[in-house]
Amino acid sequence: MDGHLARLQERLRHRFSDPALLARALTHRSFSAEHNERLEFLGDSVLNLAVSALLYERLAALPEGDLTKVRATLVKQEPLHQIAIGLGLPEALRLGEGEVRTGGRRRPSILADALEALIGAVYLDAGYAAAEALVRRLFEDVEINPRMAASAKDPKTELQEWLQGRKMKLPIYRVAATLGAAHKQTFDVECEVPEFGAVERGIGASRRAAEQAAAAAMLLGLKAKGR
Amino acid sequence: MDGHLARLQERLRHRFSDPALLARALTHRSFSAEHNERLEFLGDSVLNLAVSALLYERLAALPEGDLTKVRATLVKQEPLHQIAIGLGLPEALRLGEGEVRTGGRRRPSILADALEALIGAVYLDAGYAAAEALVRRLFEDVEINPRMAASAKDPKTELQEWLQGRKMKLPIYRVAATLGAAHKQTFDVECEVPEFGAVERGIGASRRAAEQAAAAAMLLGLKAKGR
Repeated sequence: MDGHLARLQERLRHRFSDPALLARALTHRSFSAEHNERLEFLGDSVLNLAVSALLYERLAALPEGDLTKVRATLVKQEPLHQIAIGLGLPEALRLGEGEVRTGGRRRPSILADALEALIGAVYLDAGYAAAEALVRRLFEDVEINPRMAASAKDPKTELQEWLQGRKMKLPIYRVAATLGAAHKQTFDVECEVPEFGAVERGIGASRRAAEQAAAAAMLLGLKAKGR
Repeated sequence: MDGHLARLQERLRHRFSDPALLARALTHRSFSAEHNERLEFLGDSVLNLAVSALLYERLAALPEGDLTKVRATLVKQEPLHQIAIGLGLPEALRLGEGEVRTGGRRRPSILADALEALIGAVYLDAGYAAAEALVRRLFEDVEINPRMAASAKDPKTELQEWLQGRKMKLPIYRVAATLGAAHKQTFDVECEVPEFGAVERGIGASRRAAEQAAAAAMLLGLKAKGR
């Protein structure tokens, strides 16, 4: 494990004054009660500010609403997962045996969370400027452009990717009811995620709109439960 | 207006190197195209990190989920609105005539947004440490304790306060359908906000649960539309 930690610090270009912070950032709750979740809480906020400041500088012509959308495409699970792989986090993680057996080292949510915890650990170890510099290095190769404001995902796509990231089956959509006359129908659609036994419902003026509403409700429910 | 700006800087305990940043932070979009919304984008992230770091220190025993809940009670509109009043922001704001006439100087959302913009302006003027110190001063008199994790508002309460903050009528809830046998019913409830012509629906095992789900969907819809 020590070789992993030395290599990781080289890749981060940060040597920890307090190596216990580094170890904790890499510790999943399945391994020890001294896990990384509080560091993740802090790191998420550090990441958010560092990316906001980067976008504020680089996209000087963009209004606030578009900055928020571009930021959402950058600080979400998938790009963080990719950066974590680039840093070699899968090998450095400390996971419980059960998690290792079920593929925890490759799980996007575990990797993205550990990356945020690492950013929080650098913030505690050396202050905001050091953590901001780290975030800027991590995002050096990530594309940033104003058109990303338009590509923020719709709820159905986001739900699908969220489930695929966890190797779960695709959601099932079914029309529960159609209301009103043929030219002015309202669709009532159910979205089901069988693995969770979860069903949510959406209403819309088209089948597609109702499916999007149901997917949005499902995402909200899954995230509220901390899945 | 200059007297207002001098007094405000005294209350902030920050004298701006670049006074144009201060002026911009106080400028609502109804007054000028040089408005404060991009500064608000930045300030929101600065505020979030400064409060996260404060909670991480002070509530050392609290798990991540509870820290997130406590933070949500602090960085929302109502406490920010109160802090903005304490700083004298209502008098210092630069608003268009129409906004002034309809009570814009007292509108909670405008005041909370301007406070975030001010925090963003201090960050640009003097760096993160200065902005963090400001946030800590602003929250000096705000109560912070671990029990606040339990008092995070339910969606119906949050929706009601959101509408009241905008001087709008309360939402209307109505049962659209009850499904299943008497001992195992499912409730299908509609939540309507007439001023917006918005209707959302929620499903639940009790009427109350369905109303909460419908209120959550309504909040999500209103916020997604940037109301």
